[in-house]
Amino acid sequence: MADEQTARERIAFLRGLRAVREFRPNPVPQKVIDDVLEVARWTGSAVNRQPWEFVVIRDRDTLRALAAADGFVGHMADAPLGIILVMAGDHAAQESFDEGRLSERIMLAAAAHGVGAGIGWFKPAGAETVKSILGIPRHRTVRTAIALGYADEGARGARPKRGQARKPLAELVHAERYASADLPVA
Amino acid sequence: MADEQTARERIAFLRGLRAVREFRPNPVPQKVIDDVLEVARWTGSAVNRQPWEFVVIRDRDTLRALAAADGFVGHMADAPLGIILVMAGDHAAQESFDEGRLSERIMLAAAAHGVGAGIGWFKPAGAETVKSILGIPRHRTVRTAIALGYADEGARGARPKRGQARKPLAELVHAERYASADLPVA
Repeated sequence: MADEQTARERIAFLRGLRAVREFRPNPVPQKVIDDVLEVARWTGSAVNRQPWEFVVIRDRDTLRALAAADGFVGHMADAPLGIILVMAGDHAAQESFDEGRLSERIMLAAAAHGVGAGIGWFKPAGAETVKSILGIPRHRTVRTAIALGYADEGARGARPKRGQARKPLAELVHAERYASADLPVA
Repeated sequence: MADEQTARERIAFLRGLRAVREFRPNPVPQKVIDDVLEVARWTGSAVNRQPWEFVVIRDRDTLRALAAADGFVGHMADAPLGIILVMAGDHAAQESFDEGRLSERIMLAAAAHGVGAGIGWFKPAGAETVKSILGIPRHRTVRTAIALGYADEGARGARPKRGQARKPLAELVHAERYASADLPVA
């Protein structure tokens, strides 16, 4: 058992993670980037395939070009830093699962330093644009961009939205069995 | 910026997560389960869909029956606790991505308390078995089981394996662009 105070700090840290999509212009320090990449590198994956590479982008023109690609990535335009996940492109569902684990860890590693992060998705056409901009081989899968930076708390979009709430546990958790044994399962 | 010591503790915590598949028989305390479910509940998802439910299982016979289903879930048989992820079953790739984020957070929340966790996958036939055992509707997606418990450090399978190493960052990270601009992209 971890000591009680450490456990409480870690749970509060995990529970408190929120997406950030409005950033101040301040750059992300190199040591934070180093930690983010190191935590990313140690992500677990099916059969330890580690089916990923990372393109780390600070160049404003490149970030703007990526933000304009088809998808939900507009918040990349004003982020001080972007990471594009390049997936091996072999095992669709398993790779998406591993990509989710990786993305969560990147967000958490940034948050460990007080740096915000927001996931963006490219649509298929946008992914082709990104491959062309960044010189990524066609057979790789590109779908996810993560923007990083210090949250601009004053920005309009940074205010908590109703839609960010979560379902109560009573709607999500089943003990021992999903349905009562005597109910029909449809 | 989070204070330096807090940031260091969090990064070490994130970096140090490892899968656990050999457990001591000690039960997982209820307050740990409560924290795991609360951290799971707050997982981010595409458009905040929260496309998940959790079946929490302590019953030994049920755990053994699940462990025998077709897949890579044998370690459930002797775990004190199992969580089956029940996904909405609507958006394949996006749901797998969100399921990965969820799974990583469940592992981390357990680890926050010094409790180990190991992800298991059901093959499609195994998933049908699981739906039948747990009374899960056919149109849901069931693929992932997470076993939780205190690591049995003395167990044969608990020793670090060569295959758990990770690729060096030099093989994974590209600055600004994947390929040099003057190289052909194939």
